[in-house]
Amino acid sequence: MNDHAYMARALELARKGLYSTHPNPRVGCVIVRDGAIVGEGWHVRAGEPHAEVHALRQAGELARGAAAYVTLEPCSHHGRTPPCAEALVKAGVGRVVAAMQDPNPLVAGRGLALLRDAGIEVRSGVLESEARALNAGFVKRMEQGLPFLRVKLAMSLDGRTAMASGESQWITGPQARAAVQRLRARSSVVLTGADTVLTDRARLTVRGAELGLEAEQAALALQRPPLRVLIDGGLRVLLDAPFFQAGPALVATVDGGERESYQAAGHDLLALPGADGRVNLPGLLRELAARGANEVLVEAGPRLAGAFARLGLVDEYQIFVAAKFLGSSARPLLELPLERMAEAPELRIADIRAVGDDWRIVAVPRV
Amino acid sequence: MNDHAYMARALELARKGLYSTHPNPRVGCVIVRDGAIVGEGWHVRAGEPHAEVHALRQAGELARGAAAYVTLEPCSHHGRTPPCAEALVKAGVGRVVAAMQDPNPLVAGRGLALLRDAGIEVRSGVLESEARALNAGFVKRMEQGLPFLRVKLAMSLDGRTAMASGESQWITGPQARAAVQRLRARSSVVLTGADTVLTDRARLTVRGAELGLEAEQAALALQRPPLRVLIDGGLRVLLDAPFFQAGPALVATVDGGERESYQAAGHDLLALPGADGRVNLPGLLRELAARGANEVLVEAGPRLAGAFARLGLVDEYQIFVAAKFLGSSARPLLELPLERMAEAPELRIADIRAVGDDWRIVAVPRV
Repeated sequence: MNDHAYMARALELARKGLYSTHPNPRVGCVIVRDGAIVGEGWHVRAGEPHAEVHALRQAGELARGAAAYVTLEPCSHHGRTPPCAEALVKAGVGRVVAAMQDPNPLVAGRGLALLRDAGIEVRSGVLESEARALNAGFVKRMEQGLPFLRVKLAMSLDGRTAMASGESQWITGPQARAAVQRLRARSSVVLTGADTVLTDRARLTVRGAELGLEAEQAALALQRPPLRVLIDGGLRVLLDAPFFQAGPALVATVDGGERESYQAAGHDLLALPGADGRVNLPGLLRELAARGANEVLVEAGPRLAGAFARLGLVDEYQIFVAAKFLGSSARPLLELPLERMAEAPELRIADIRAVGDDWRIVAVPRV
Repeated sequence: MNDHAYMARALELARKGLYSTHPNPRVGCVIVRDGAIVGEGWHVRAGEPHAEVHALRQAGELARGAAAYVTLEPCSHHGRTPPCAEALVKAGVGRVVAAMQDPNPLVAGRGLALLRDAGIEVRSGVLESEARALNAGFVKRMEQGLPFLRVKLAMSLDGRTAMASGESQWITGPQARAAVQRLRARSSVVLTGADTVLTDRARLTVRGAELGLEAEQAALALQRPPLRVLIDGGLRVLLDAPFFQAGPALVATVDGGERESYQAAGHDLLALPGADGRVNLPGLLRELAARGANEVLVEAGPRLAGAFARLGLVDEYQIFVAAKFLGSSARPLLELPLERMAEAPELRIADIRAVGDDWRIVAVPRV
């Protein structure tokens, strides 16, 4: 096995934290001595030990002179846990391979420098693009102060979401719904609009039985549910709606006058008026990033999803396609009025695969 | 090798006739003696020898006592060529394996019976579904008196075909265009409407350089171009349009009064008035089948394509998807006004794959 193979294993471990590490990144670590893996670890939850600590504990004395593979540069600062770079030095490892540097420009490279200063051989950049993709939200938040914005859409093969009458129902099957549940569970925030909550009586919660995950992963996901955020400029959704009954939520609106009544009901209200009298969407995303949101999932109607698209704020579309035609009178995928073909946003299709009887298309805006 | 493997080779040979056998089916034949292939053949063009004759010629004396694998029951009637079942008897083959019986209910089983009566061991039904799929058009014409109707569509990821202004251009790339050229080349008929011909100045011809085929296949395709059929109830397309300048065409309309002027220009005109004052589409398809059309490719705008969809006449949609959004004001994929979700036609997605930067979705109506 070579550096790539051990790092691939470390990434596999890191992925176990897909549903639980937020606001921290998902990190995995493998300790290798004489060609054998003697320690493995992954970060489970914020406030608990980092991946390196778990792996070093498992390796024990065997860590001395061994090589450590980490999917993210070991931290060098004292946070809620002591710095991992120091732990690696203390354990006496001889070599550290990192997939990527810390994306926070203020600390990037410090952990690796600390290791080098202690005489440890250091290599960085092994499977870097995979490591960045696994933590796309954390990376974007560190680098740009914004979360990774993923828009989930469900449409018919002819690009429609509901009948003109508003008649609407799940047009995709149970496996697609489970995939959406997992998208919610991995996100720091699930974001929706008043239209969706009023029309569909949507709660946007994570439901363990529908996740389709193994028991351990499902339990981790449920322990750390995403924050549900409702954009409701006119405060049209009443506090007795199923959305608010399902648990604490954050409401983004244009006027904070009603904040106390929302707080009394266990929710929070954030006033973010934009220049057009609507909620300031970029401002909301910056605020969510400041609160530690790595990945934000937008599950909204064509109007709100279209607004994010028009503002160029979308990092990824996940489009679930049901194999039927809803016809030309039905509602559009996105409220996106364009006049000329030159304005049409160009995308790159990153993945298409079957999800039960439906298909999932992952499309990424071309920049 | 077993029966399946030899039949798979025979099907591979049959596919060489994809672009040239019409109105005949694509047929391949393999002669096997003592575990070795001693003869191979495929049908090239109507009026020329059938696959069995080519394979028997190649096998020569080695055919005696050999096994013959044919993708379609050998014919028993005297057509433009003598019956293949007799040729197999004369050559002294000991065993005949057919993928499927002749789909024509009037002659099905006669060829195999003739072989059995001559003391030849006969097996039928090996890789039958593959054989039927290869000749879906021929099979449907024989069984139902209708051609296989394939509708080609090109859309953006949000299910739109052109801007509201009518601004339209190839939204898919060169590889998707080549795939469409090959769809035309394999069809007996390419069918379009006046809107498409007028708006896009479409000619709907097969262009050898754009086929992306090897020289031999391209040459075969060009020797037998599909009949171009224009549905033009109001005779709006003038005879000096590029469509008519590109070669002889058939016009389906509601009134035959102008037939002579079309004939004088080298075209033909067919009056098929429907009850609604428009061209009778099922009647047109029956007429095309009677003229030997196996596969009909519809390349039309949302109105005509939608009309075929509403009438339940479509066997397969081939949807080329460009990775962009044209937005909610743009034109729909199909003119298909539905009011209730229960009316939405259900499809099965048979295949999705990348074609250059675009994607092709093959969808089949659920019956």
